[in-house]
Amino acid sequence: MSHNTFGHLFRVTTWGESHGAAIGCVVDGCPPNLPLDEAYVQGFLDKRKPGTSRFVTQRKEPDEVRILSGVFADDRTDGQVTTGTPISMMIENVDQRSKDYSEIRDRYRPGHADYAYDQKYGIRDYRGGGRSSARETAMRVAAGAVARRVLGDGITIRGAVIQIGPHMIDPENWDWDETGNNPFWCPDAKTAAQWEDFLDETRKAGSSAGAIVEVHASGVPAGWGAPIYGKLDSELASAMMSINAAKGVEIGAGFAAASYSGEENADEMRMGNEGVRFLSNNNGGVAGGISTGQDVVVRVAIKPTSSILSQTRSVTRDGDEVDVRTKGRHDPCVGIRAVPVAEAMMACVLADAKLRHRGQMG
Amino acid sequence: MSHNTFGHLFRVTTWGESHGAAIGCVVDGCPPNLPLDEAYVQGFLDKRKPGTSRFVTQRKEPDEVRILSGVFADDRTDGQVTTGTPISMMIENVDQRSKDYSEIRDRYRPGHADYAYDQKYGIRDYRGGGRSSARETAMRVAAGAVARRVLGDGITIRGAVIQIGPHMIDPENWDWDETGNNPFWCPDAKTAAQWEDFLDETRKAGSSAGAIVEVHASGVPAGWGAPIYGKLDSELASAMMSINAAKGVEIGAGFAAASYSGEENADEMRMGNEGVRFLSNNNGGVAGGISTGQDVVVRVAIKPTSSILSQTRSVTRDGDEVDVRTKGRHDPCVGIRAVPVAEAMMACVLADAKLRHRGQMG
Amino acid sequence: MSHNTFGHLFRVTTWGESHGAAIGCVVDGCPPNLPLDEAYVQGFLDKRKPGTSRFVTQRKEPDEVRILSGVFADDRTDGQVTTGTPISMMIENVDQRSKDYSEIRDRYRPGHADYAYDQKYGIRDYRGGGRSSARETAMRVAAGAVARRVLGDGITIRGAVIQIGPHMIDPENWDWDETGNNPFWCPDAKTAAQWEDFLDETRKAGSSAGAIVEVHASGVPAGWGAPIYGKLDSELASAMMSINAAKGVEIGAGFAAASYSGEENADEMRMGNEGVRFLSNNNGGVAGGISTGQDVVVRVAIKPTSSILSQTRSVTRDGDEVDVRTKGRHDPCVGIRAVPVAEAMMACVLADAKLRHRGQMG
Amino acid sequence: MSHNTFGHLFRVTTWGESHGAAIGCVVDGCPPNLPLDEAYVQGFLDKRKPGTSRFVTQRKEPDEVRILSGVFADDRTDGQVTTGTPISMMIENVDQRSKDYSEIRDRYRPGHADYAYDQKYGIRDYRGGGRSSARETAMRVAAGAVARRVLGDGITIRGAVIQIGPHMIDPENWDWDETGNNPFWCPDAKTAAQWEDFLDETRKAGSSAGAIVEVHASGVPAGWGAPIYGKLDSELASAMMSINAAKGVEIGAGFAAASYSGEENADEMRMGNEGVRFLSNNNGGVAGGISTGQDVVVRVAIKPTSSILSQTRSVTRDGDEVDVRTKGRHDPCVGIRAVPVAEAMMACVLADAKLRHRGQMG
Repeated sequence: MSHNTFGHLFRVTTWGESHGAAIGCVVDGCPPNLPLDEAYVQGFLDKRKPGTSRFVTQRKEPDEVRILSGVFADDRTDGQVTTGTPISMMIENVDQRSKDYSEIRDRYRPGHADYAYDQKYGIRDYRGGGRSSARETAMRVAAGAVARRVLGDGITIRGAVIQIGPHMIDPENWDWDETGNNPFWCPDAKTAAQWEDFLDETRKAGSSAGAIVEVHASGVPAGWGAPIYGKLDSELASAMMSINAAKGVEIGAGFAAASYSGEENADEMRMGNEGVRFLSNNNGGVAGGISTGQDVVVRVAIKPTSSILSQTRSVTRDGDEVDVRTKGRHDPCVGIRAVPVAEAMMACVLADAKLRHRGQMG
Repeated sequence: MSHNTFGHLFRVTTWGESHGAAIGCVVDGCPPNLPLDEAYVQGFLDKRKPGTSRFVTQRKEPDEVRILSGVFADDRTDGQVTTGTPISMMIENVDQRSKDYSEIRDRYRPGHADYAYDQKYGIRDYRGGGRSSARETAMRVAAGAVARRVLGDGITIRGAVIQIGPHMIDPENWDWDETGNNPFWCPDAKTAAQWEDFLDETRKAGSSAGAIVEVHASGVPAGWGAPIYGKLDSELASAMMSINAAKGVEIGAGFAAASYSGEENADEMRMGNEGVRFLSNNNGGVAGGISTGQDVVVRVAIKPTSSILSQTRSVTRDGDEVDVRTKGRHDPCVGIRAVPVAEAMMACVLADAKLRHRGQMG
Repeated sequence: MSHNTFGHLFRVTTWGESHGAAIGCVVDGCPPNLPLDEAYVQGFLDKRKPGTSRFVTQRKEPDEVRILSGVFADDRTDGQVTTGTPISMMIENVDQRSKDYSEIRDRYRPGHADYAYDQKYGIRDYRGGGRSSARETAMRVAAGAVARRVLGDGITIRGAVIQIGPHMIDPENWDWDETGNNPFWCPDAKTAAQWEDFLDETRKAGSSAGAIVEVHASGVPAGWGAPIYGKLDSELASAMMSINAAKGVEIGAGFAAASYSGEENADEMRMGNEGVRFLSNNNGGVAGGISTGQDVVVRVAIKPTSSILSQTRSVTRDGDEVDVRTKGRHDPCVGIRAVPVAEAMMACVLADAKLRHRGQMG
Repeated sequence: MSHNTFGHLFRVTTWGESHGAAIGCVVDGCPPNLPLDEAYVQGFLDKRKPGTSRFVTQRKEPDEVRILSGVFADDRTDGQVTTGTPISMMIENVDQRSKDYSEIRDRYRPGHADYAYDQKYGIRDYRGGGRSSARETAMRVAAGAVARRVLGDGITIRGAVIQIGPHMIDPENWDWDETGNNPFWCPDAKTAAQWEDFLDETRKAGSSAGAIVEVHASGVPAGWGAPIYGKLDSELASAMMSINAAKGVEIGAGFAAASYSGEENADEMRMGNEGVRFLSNNNGGVAGGISTGQDVVVRVAIKPTSSILSQTRSVTRDGDEVDVRTKGRHDPCVGIRAVPVAEAMMACVLADAKLRHRGQMG
């Protein structure tokens, strides 16, 4: 991970500001001859798109992706495929309301990156959050679509929201199919109904709510990852923590493991029909930094959107205290739209792990 | 982070197995003219040393470090100082009981990396955990000692255990001075007494307990870190998650932020006598991936040691089911000795961030 | 250097194929508040542009660059400046003659990358050379323009062609001003006249000629670079060798040093009015991998363009022997247009060295 | 390449000063189950060892290597093999004459790195050249021995000296077997005799001579390497230029290609019994940065040793002009001992290319 690039063999670089000309990414190191066209990538982007329900921002970002390089089609290829050269993708910014940003250019919104950016760079593109805007995550989703091609059909990556505000799902009710039936990626129909009320209130109050996102990857073979500083869980931790508003990452039992005894926590093994099977998955599919063949399970804590309508007090660049009220069309719970982003990060980390593993192991 | 190396400008590479000839590290990119000798590094290693109380492993690892390169002293230097070239440090392995390891070489201990390593490499040094042994963390502590020199006296890094098993400290009682008064790095005297009983029971039962470690870095100036994939919290997440037995990392309010409202979570700013001050630190000293000048606050969940005396059932390399009982001198709560390790990882990440920041910003 | 990215703190990623939608680059790690707009970058691109004389390709590539991110202007900035976030630049491909490429898609042109790409990837975008086209070097020039801003006015980077085919310049006649007076970047007016005749003949014969390019960087302070694998000359070697058609790189006296005695080769030092001065520069401004304050001097050997009109014999993808004649509008001496590219690579390597140096040294 | 580390998947980090306690390296990313013991590595080190003839330094460096990690042997392995974890190797420094270095600690020897190091770091270990000593190259040879195991028996890497001072071999006389029959790695018996006289004179005069080393790798399959900044020749260029005293690198025809016409330079292809064959190898086995299946051919120019007995004039740290005479036991032609080093760098670059290739391509 290096500023705006992550990955080792499967490498993703993103660029662009919220209100600049465009945002984009370059995916380098992708194997050749994988099917890849714009419609396929767009399918994933549409899952993250704003405006799909009243619980996400009402900004209109059509987010139409263009693939500018790294793919090829002629009468011998089976549609458009990757060539092994860098894949450049771009989305032009179109819904940039040309409003007056002079108010926020000098005011540091609490919880935002405004102050930290100014302290570092002495300058920032303050329009819509600039580089720190969650708009950047669209390119992660695009890169993740490529990563899924690298992983192939044998690996399934699925995400869900398991908590919004103080309301957690009941794990007993978990049904992956349910995540498509509500606007929250909620796997528990009963909790989804509760969230609807809770978020309506939150929205009306001009407030916002945090969330926890959980992502599973099934079908990952044992052996991916590497010891010590290349641990698969370490890579996942940095990838997930790099998502906007993420404040925590855990693998498998995570923080709950702190209160377990060694007996409770150990994932015992038995011989099954298809080799080793585990009686539990507290390790979240990773032991010693290497995948065990179980589902890789990651959870990410997403803090409430800092952009809230209710007035707060803050300071200006010049050191004056002022009132700040963030107008605009914001997500009441940014954690919802983080689901496809966290899925994409899982896909990218696993694609990189796959390539690195076969690099060393053949 | 790349297999056995982490960092960008301040880079640490470690090597060695638990029962090989030695363990060691190479610290590259360190600025010159910083005081560094063995006694100084040894001081940090002694904090992590086994055998200091009945609550940690009784193995005898004198852990005497040698500095083999990258330092110089003559009559013009103020003692021994760094030269800017790679610093190689080594600890010879001396307490390797030459026992028969044939039993565990084929049995996969539940919760351990045994199975994953074999699935990846088809071979492993099974003596004492080999490369996956927590013995490797001694070299992180040595590297962290160098990193503290890079950071200088203005930055203070301190760690504490805040939970052992189900018993959490009372934050109201937090007293940093207290961490030196008990064998748990516990900042709450009352809870320390409770842990003593709890761990005595755990130890007698041949069981083990998980823990949560919290590390603070004070004095970090605003501006370190970088957007997107070079976020300071993202770097911290991978560094902390790479520690043996770590299963979760959170920054600031962390997972608790998921249940907060935007108002509760926002760290409001006011003007203080020495510039901006914040009314809270839910962001844990990092916003948009860049330090804010507040304390950088990280918590790490450490699972209970997988090596337990009570018998469990598992499988062998050849696919037979067997009983496994891990004999040996193990930590009842490996989280305790993780404190100096987590401090060291914080120091290394910050030293790297400092150098990268001044690289870009001058 | 990693596939399509080079640099450590000042990092350049390029993407795009000769006949795809566009080519582009992302420059990451650039310090903020440096003036940067399209007109400035375009000035450097125009030096590399095809069609400027009859000695370079007659393809029309307007090469109009757009800066898509990483810059900002408002009423407080002094024009448009960098923000410290990734700078994305793009040139749309417009002169793509939609001709039938079916002939060369199966024929491996001698000296070209056709065969190697097919052996590696099993697929390639064969239109106009695809990713292996020298068109990619336009983005190096754009990145080099940014790098010059990082270096500032105190450092001057200038390139020249010193040999075309068997005809070398007379170093006695070297005059930097002369490089602007002929279409060859030739610093020796007399030799330039000779080259004119030689290249006219080459062109008429449908042949091509090799060349040697020399680049000087003046004003580089002593101390940049680093020992061993981060040597400044090592970085320059990989940067220069990555230029299309480059087959050799030398620093200072280079290969000639092999025939020198130790006395002849040593660059003796004396005290001058402004500190140390050297009596010669056989080291090319780099000793032990670190700059000495002398001019950094690099030479690059550029092989003759492989695309020649005269017919040669080769093989097809299917293993048949065939005649190959490369039609199209090619450079009779691609070394000429390599001058701004080699200058740009020098600028990028030095900008990276500058940032890394101050990262470690403050 | 990053300061003291090079390689991407097969990574080598070296450390140590000439007169410190020891020198060493860490080889990371090596595949498991490759045979590796000290005797095997020592065989390569002995080729580089000082004192083997009167034409190399008479210092006594037994250079006995110890392998400290990353290998394992038990009754099931076929001797000692790699485990996939980092391989640490170390050579203790034993022939450090404890003499008074006070004279050279303040005098900058012409052509040496003394001045540049002091300008960068403000401090250096001046004993025997410290980190800039060619002693570091012993660890490259050790790492190269591991790399050869990664490449396997199908790939042969051989080096030769082809020029010493002004005396070049006659390529017509090239006989690889001859390189073992003289103390120069000279493939031309006739020239070897000439060099003997020339170097005897050089040695007696207290002078030194430059050299050119050529390395061939046979058996490299087509397809290794990658476009643009991951070009195989680009990687080779930086690897070779990082060797002490290297001032030039060329691939295939190299600088000679500058004077060729396109027809002369093109490596025409024909169909042979075992697939494509080439009529020439001006490309040196690399096209577009990717191996073609021909021999990979690299040449490195090595400048004459800067340490010469004859007196020169230079400056001190304090800015005074002084006489300098480098006493000690130096190589009259350091290029001779560079042969096993250049072979090792070739092996390391190819091993890395092999792993990266199969990472991306499977």
